[in-house]
Amino acid sequence: MREAYHEELAAISDGLVEMANLVGSAIGLATTALLDADLKLAESVISADEKIDGLQRELENRAITVLARQQPVATDLRVVVTSLRMSADLERSGDLAEHVAKLARMRHPQRAVPRDLRRTILEMGQVAQRLMAQAAEVIITQDVKAALQMEQDDERMDELHRTIFQHLMDDRWQHGVETAVDVTLVGRYYERFADHAVSVARRLVYLVTGERADELPTDGAGAM
Amino acid sequence: MREAYHEELAAISDGLVEMANLVGSAIGLATTALLDADLKLAESVISADEKIDGLQRELENRAITVLARQQPVATDLRVVVTSLRMSADLERSGDLAEHVAKLARMRHPQRAVPRDLRRTILEMGQVAQRLMAQAAEVIITQDVKAALQMEQDDERMDELHRTIFQHLMDDRWQHGVETAVDVTLVGRYYERFADHAVSVARRLVYLVTGERADELPTDGAGAM
Repeated sequence: MREAYHEELAAISDGLVEMANLVGSAIGLATTALLDADLKLAESVISADEKIDGLQRELENRAITVLARQQPVATDLRVVVTSLRMSADLERSGDLAEHVAKLARMRHPQRAVPRDLRRTILEMGQVAQRLMAQAAEVIITQDVKAALQMEQDDERMDELHRTIFQHLMDDRWQHGVETAVDVTLVGRYYERFADHAVSVARRLVYLVTGERADELPTDGAGAM
Repeated sequence: MREAYHEELAAISDGLVEMANLVGSAIGLATTALLDADLKLAESVISADEKIDGLQRELENRAITVLARQQPVATDLRVVVTSLRMSADLERSGDLAEHVAKLARMRHPQRAVPRDLRRTILEMGQVAQRLMAQAAEVIITQDVKAALQMEQDDERMDELHRTIFQHLMDDRWQHGVETAVDVTLVGRYYERFADHAVSVARRLVYLVTGERADELPTDGAGAM
């Protein structure tokens, strides 16, 4: 019985890592689809989101079954409750990757992102993908220090987001309102994606320490 | 023991209703602050969000304590798990109301919303507030039909959101890029707020029926 139980918990953790991997790939591919106006790639990201949603439902059902049958307490209870929350973060991140892909599809064969913002958006996509890879890793390693470190990596995303706004608010902006709207939304999608990745890491900190990450001292190396 | 237990469940439900009420008021006040460029009102919405966050933490701790001590099964387990999710939706809705207020503050003493979109944004605020009031009500009444009805009311929000995009994409748009960015973000905040209110209703349907709302037949009266 206990054996089967810990196998169930391990399966939940594996499911989370798989979701994080899929979502990380999705944002990477969506970014390429957006920058290259690659319709086929955009479509593939959009249809792959169903798989992510399916994984989440599976994972939730599994977690609720464990709660009902095994009635975990203490750390095990924390594991299950935290998993439910992490899976919600990951599902939402998948939606955001899908939003990026949908914008690519909507503007195809045009490109939604003007040339002078290409590099910024590329980096936003990379930071997003990297943060999600880190989130998958901290789920596996349960490394609190690495989880807390992610807050600092997220600052790069905030910087990039500010760069976008600087472009938008510059009097020399010459790409018109439609592109301004697209860029505003895309910037927000990446920023929110990164927030969810960091949120997964914060929940991991709670899982391991029993304390919320925002109540813990951080290394304080970051700016802002 | 059982008595205390059901009191705990009732307290969790009361907490959700209180959160929904506060969040509903927040979006109403934030809308007024935005449309009137009312700095004081904006500040009050921003500082009130802490209370909402505090309520959520309280509610989560309570739910986890119930899981650990009472080890609920079947319907009671569903109540507790669903409450955790609803509280996450409500907390996030509060953040979105705060975002609206922060935009009002950032543009003060200017108004972020141009005159010809005032009516649309006003109605978005009203629909958002109304949906959240309905969400609070279905938590109390557990009325599945009313919960499913909310999907249709949410369509009005989608229409209003499309109206905003029509204005933005119109060649006669003459409010510049900064205002376009503001309006894009505000439109998204309201739309997401409404999504979270509908999500609370969907979770209520799951709580009562054990089935996901998206798997249930709806009245089919809505368009789209």
